[in-house]
Amino acid sequence: MGLFTRDIKTLNDLFVHTLRDMYYAEQQIVKSLPEMIEKAHDPELKQAFSSHLEESKSHARRLEDVFRLHGAEAKGLDCPAIDGIIEEAEDVAGDIADDQVLDAAIIAAAQAVEHYEIARYGSLIAWAKRLGRNDSASLLEQTLQEEKATDKKLSDIAESKVNMRAA
Amino acid sequence: MGLFTRDIKTLNDLFVHTLRDMYYAEQQIVKSLPEMIEKAHDPELKQAFSSHLEESKSHARRLEDVFRLHGAEAKGLDCPAIDGIIEEAEDVAGDIADDQVLDAAIIAAAQAVEHYEIARYGSLIAWAKRLGRNDSASLLEQTLQEEKATDKKLSDIAESKVNMRAA
Repeated sequence: MGLFTRDIKTLNDLFVHTLRDMYYAEQQIVKSLPEMIEKAHDPELKQAFSSHLEESKSHARRLEDVFRLHGAEAKGLDCPAIDGIIEEAEDVAGDIADDQVLDAAIIAAAQAVEHYEIARYGSLIAWAKRLGRNDSASLLEQTLQEEKATDKKLSDIAESKVNMRAA
Repeated sequence: MGLFTRDIKTLNDLFVHTLRDMYYAEQQIVKSLPEMIEKAHDPELKQAFSSHLEESKSHARRLEDVFRLHGAEAKGLDCPAIDGIIEEAEDVAGDIADDQVLDAAIIAAAQAVEHYEIARYGSLIAWAKRLGRNDSASLLEQTLQEEKATDKKLSDIAESKVNMRAA
């Protein structure tokens, strides 16, 4: 969440603050995915990341729609959580020589990103409903379902690579 | 993940590396939960965090069992992801004056922690099975189920507080 949490006085403030956290997060994800696409060896994994890059751009645009519905300025806020998760992803992607082990590590790092997003969008949807904003909740629910589908697809890819050299 | 990823050559190396990431994460969670228990206002939320504190200690001990099964030294590795997630949690817990809004923010922060753990334990279980280590997979599966139950309990508490002042 980062800066300005002292300005949070109402649930609406918390909602907008967390929207800004996620707006920043989606932008950082869009920046980091091209490196993951390049590092990944498995063609199916590359394809999954490429699709998710386009999806993440649409998630950022959807957040802009939610900002508009709430009359709030669309801007990002520093988010140490996504920074740390992406730092781990880039770190592990840089150093592993074995193709299959690297793919396993990249999939795991991407699933950590997905789960951060699943947690945050889940909270945003609950708060939107409580604020009586089913319009926003419905938009955010579309994003949540896409994040869950990406997580599931990554699990499926990981499980299908059963021939990996184990040791 | 942090340091020493250049030493990851096999799936077993990646597994042990990620065990160390989670060993550090569980220790940081154990350190941060007392502040969350103190800051939370809702008695049911305080109780959920207290139970989870004990559970997190047992998860760290369970990781020690898995290290032993793999003949690896039980030690933590810096994990920028959990550091960032906890930094956000502490930041938001420090600044919000309204009790109910603060509880909503703390619940969301704790669910971000749970989802990080759900992602990482999920990967560890998949890798343990691929390594033919059903003994480790079974231990880690117990932890995963407890993390999922905590996430669910936090959602239930959040949803039951329907009287929150919204704006």
